[in-house]
Amino acid sequence: MHMIKTSVFCGVSLDGFIARENGDIDWLTSGESAKEDYGYNDFIAAVDALVIGRNTYETVLGFGGWFYGEMPVYVLSSRELEKLPEGGKVERMSGEPKAILEELASRGHTHVYVDGGVTVQRFLRDDAIDRIIVSRLPILIGTGIPLFGETGRDIRLKLVSVKEFPSGMVQTEYAVKR
Amino acid sequence: MHMIKTSVFCGVSLDGFIARENGDIDWLTSGESAKEDYGYNDFIAAVDALVIGRNTYETVLGFGGWFYGEMPVYVLSSRELEKLPEGGKVERMSGEPKAILEELASRGHTHVYVDGGVTVQRFLRDDAIDRIIVSRLPILIGTGIPLFGETGRDIRLKLVSVKEFPSGMVQTEYAVKR
Repeated sequence: MHMIKTSVFCGVSLDGFIARENGDIDWLTSGESAKEDYGYNDFIAAVDALVIGRNTYETVLGFGGWFYGEMPVYVLSSRELEKLPEGGKVERMSGEPKAILEELASRGHTHVYVDGGVTVQRFLRDDAIDRIIVSRLPILIGTGIPLFGETGRDIRLKLVSVKEFPSGMVQTEYAVKR
Repeated sequence: MHMIKTSVFCGVSLDGFIARENGDIDWLTSGESAKEDYGYNDFIAAVDALVIGRNTYETVLGFGGWFYGEMPVYVLSSRELEKLPEGGKVERMSGEPKAILEELASRGHTHVYVDGGVTVQRFLRDDAIDRIIVSRLPILIGTGIPLFGETGRDIRLKLVSVKEFPSGMVQTEYAVKR
């Protein structure tokens, strides 16, 4: 098996949502926390591929533009992607998390950013996540799309670091214990 | 209106649960984090009454013994309490959160500890919580009783402090913004 590392890097509300029910992240992108560099650029520089689900992909497309630049983006979906973003390196894939990671490793990827609620949950369930970096904003939104979901078992983590930001955001990094 | 302060002090999993579906908190009371004084005793010394819902009350009774000592405990329920713990000061109440706080203030209480998922959620929804202290353990349990629930609106918080414990528990304290 090739060596490949997988990380989650995600902003959530104090009640654990990554977006409102309709996908809105206004509460995340407005206000004090939006002005901070909370390590996203460093994180992006450290990964060499992104794996997201179709929902996240379409949400990102809906923002207009394409903010992943030339980073290879793998969209997990059983259906063909209708439109591809200009200038983006996007490819559809489907299959089990570990098979997908094998394929990505065989292509030379070493550190994959896994994003989106459904995809993160699926990879966690299949024990295919190494690191989780959660940036928690000081707000309760009450309802929305959760970062975490059914795991089928307890998943123990090791706290790696805690960072506090002026906006009140708290960023915690965890390594999944094996 | 009398001055009365309300605080939540709660241990949760990284995915936001205060207990498993069946009420079990084995993941919270075993392991490294159980050995730490994470400020619970100081917190308890600072409050002069506890408000809990019937579910939490019955869960606590089920543990055997009565660990709230002589602190006045108000159990929110529309039905009479069948059995009262020996040595405990327990009283049933019912009504809206703010009316209950008025009543407790008129009895001379100044700082109330609000506990239990349903009760915390109800008090938050009714804007009747001042402080939230969340101790987050480095574990995902996947399913259970959530600390937070529907709020009906965004609730903005101010981060007051962050503490990291050797077990990997991260304790954050928030003040509710008004």
